[in-house]
Amino acid sequence: MTRIAILGSTGSIGTSALSVVDTHPDRLEVVALAAGNNVQLCADQVRKYRPQLAAVASAGGAAALKSLCDVPVQIAAGPEGLIAVATCADADIVLCASSGTAALEAVLAAIEHGKTIALANKEVLVMAGGLVMEAARRKGVAVLPVDSEHNAIHQCLHGRDPGEVRRLVLTASGGPFRGRTREALAHVTAADALKHPTWQMGQKITIDSATLMNKGLEVIEAHWLFGVPASRIDVVVHPQSIIHSMVELMDGSVIAQLGITDMRLPIQYAFSYPHRWDAPVPFLDLTRMGALEFHEPAWADFPCLGLAYRALEADRSLPIVLNAANEVAVASFLEGRLAFTDIPELIARTMDAHEPSPAATLEQVRRIDAWARERAETGMRELQSR
Amino acid sequence: MTRIAILGSTGSIGTSALSVVDTHPDRLEVVALAAGNNVQLCADQVRKYRPQLAAVASAGGAAALKSLCDVPVQIAAGPEGLIAVATCADADIVLCASSGTAALEAVLAAIEHGKTIALANKEVLVMAGGLVMEAARRKGVAVLPVDSEHNAIHQCLHGRDPGEVRRLVLTASGGPFRGRTREALAHVTAADALKHPTWQMGQKITIDSATLMNKGLEVIEAHWLFGVPASRIDVVVHPQSIIHSMVELMDGSVIAQLGITDMRLPIQYAFSYPHRWDAPVPFLDLTRMGALEFHEPAWADFPCLGLAYRALEADRSLPIVLNAANEVAVASFLEGRLAFTDIPELIARTMDAHEPSPAATLEQVRRIDAWARERAETGMRELQSR
Repeated sequence: MTRIAILGSTGSIGTSALSVVDTHPDRLEVVALAAGNNVQLCADQVRKYRPQLAAVASAGGAAALKSLCDVPVQIAAGPEGLIAVATCADADIVLCASSGTAALEAVLAAIEHGKTIALANKEVLVMAGGLVMEAARRKGVAVLPVDSEHNAIHQCLHGRDPGEVRRLVLTASGGPFRGRTREALAHVTAADALKHPTWQMGQKITIDSATLMNKGLEVIEAHWLFGVPASRIDVVVHPQSIIHSMVELMDGSVIAQLGITDMRLPIQYAFSYPHRWDAPVPFLDLTRMGALEFHEPAWADFPCLGLAYRALEADRSLPIVLNAANEVAVASFLEGRLAFTDIPELIARTMDAHEPSPAATLEQVRRIDAWARERAETGMRELQSR
Repeated sequence: MTRIAILGSTGSIGTSALSVVDTHPDRLEVVALAAGNNVQLCADQVRKYRPQLAAVASAGGAAALKSLCDVPVQIAAGPEGLIAVATCADADIVLCASSGTAALEAVLAAIEHGKTIALANKEVLVMAGGLVMEAARRKGVAVLPVDSEHNAIHQCLHGRDPGEVRRLVLTASGGPFRGRTREALAHVTAADALKHPTWQMGQKITIDSATLMNKGLEVIEAHWLFGVPASRIDVVVHPQSIIHSMVELMDGSVIAQLGITDMRLPIQYAFSYPHRWDAPVPFLDLTRMGALEFHEPAWADFPCLGLAYRALEADRSLPIVLNAANEVAVASFLEGRLAFTDIPELIARTMDAHEPSPAATLEQVRRIDAWARERAETGMRELQSR
């Protein structure tokens, strides 16, 4: 029996993870759950999965959760609650599917407690890849990627000598605006951007998919997860999202992982690794999928991807700035305060204003993150007053 | 330094193998060569690669080879010559790229002498898969597939638990007649059939590609190489031949091997295994390949594929009959004595006439093979007198 703790249990990844638990009740047990503000769903989950510990974002939410739960459960709140779930003594694996800097602290705490990490949160490695991977190495803890692309690469690398790997190739759906020029993109709305062609995901990541920043963040993640420099990580647009990513080997062979577009597949892989269990999803039938296409990314029309490479190549602190400015920009775009094409503009301006600095401690990471958010807000005002 | 012996050095696979030697002269040394009737090319190879032993098909050829070679080399002829090359004391790996039953004996001899087998000959496993794999197990000898499909599967399986494999999926280009109906196929000529869309190969295998018998033989080979029953080996038509084959795992993941269509890639893999060396071929650029398509095979229009499954499922002796009748049929088609659509007809008639019998010894295999060839010749006459 593998005992899991889930950070972000009411989100898209969290609910998919619980669906994997439903498929394998004999193999998986939920010992702790952390949710954000969806207290009602969290209460339903507590009643169904009977964790020993549940946490929500606020003290008020915790009180509401307590009144909704008629089963014995310890209840916690806030960043401390998240860390309590991440370090729950009985958990073997912590699935990190919550967002923000709070998740980073929780992951670091889980690593210190020797938990295997199933990582679905991008910011953790983008902001503090060095810190997290060094802690994992020191504690002998595995960091298993749940993102479908990194999960695919993990599968392709399994059992291979890293010295034989020439290049990682991340596939990108290209998002809902693939093929549009920068001019055509100037007037797209949040509603347009939220219609992703192949994946059902949360709002933030769906907008990141539309700008290709999601792929940029994944390039940075891949660098940390697999220890490969930016120059050996490529992106290819593959609108069908059937090949989830590839590894090119030195002899010219390419190993790819394919599957249907359902997050239960990589989540289960992380839970079952190094074994595999029966499929939680239908099997892939390539003959019913139509043709698989591959294109170069449109770098000029989607500048976020290039910004991510620039951040990764330049400096350890710049990815933190990229990530923070992107969060501010996406939130502003979703609120209708920023044009789609101004998302990369705002990020670039914030990066340009940044003085590279060390980012080797959680404190330094937090400081750079806070600076970048403030600078991005200033940039927002500059853009609005154009 | 890995020392290799090549059976079939002047054929398509043999010359590609020598091109791999040219790419890695510091890693590969040719110690023995066996050719068929192309004595001139064999002499050129002897002068260039300086093997200690060279063999050709006939005593006359051997005499001619001796007069053409002005370098020190031991010369042999006939089936004994082939076996001498296959068992050459200094060879580490024997590449079997020659055809027919003589190759089967040579491979068995090489296994008895503890040589690693790089197998490019289909008949060896189709006729005597049980015999060959059992001998290899007994001697602790690796049989590494050079066929691009099986080589791909070998790469996809590397490092994985066989218990996690649900299905092997062999890709098929579909050959030059993909999409044609049986009626349209009745009048195609040998010249039409020899124009293969994606692979440059010998005549016999090119016709086998056009009938899909090549894929049928590969299903039988895959069964023996990987120990998977026919019911868990599928074929999918993939006209671009970029995905060389796939393995479906129990959790719904599919692992695929991709590459350009150049036999030097799988040949080098077999020579370098379990390591990899620098590419002998250009790297794959998926963005320049166009779309990848996948279709169900047209079972009714190309009955050879179904015949191969029938042979594999039914009985250990039936694959020998399938193979022998196919060789007679293809030779007759190439000579213009048999219609394209009568190739499966002749094979089916020969299989129908066969009384299943044990095929556990080389002697039994030879007897069934001889019977089937004779029966197929009789069948030829029946078909001609229709």
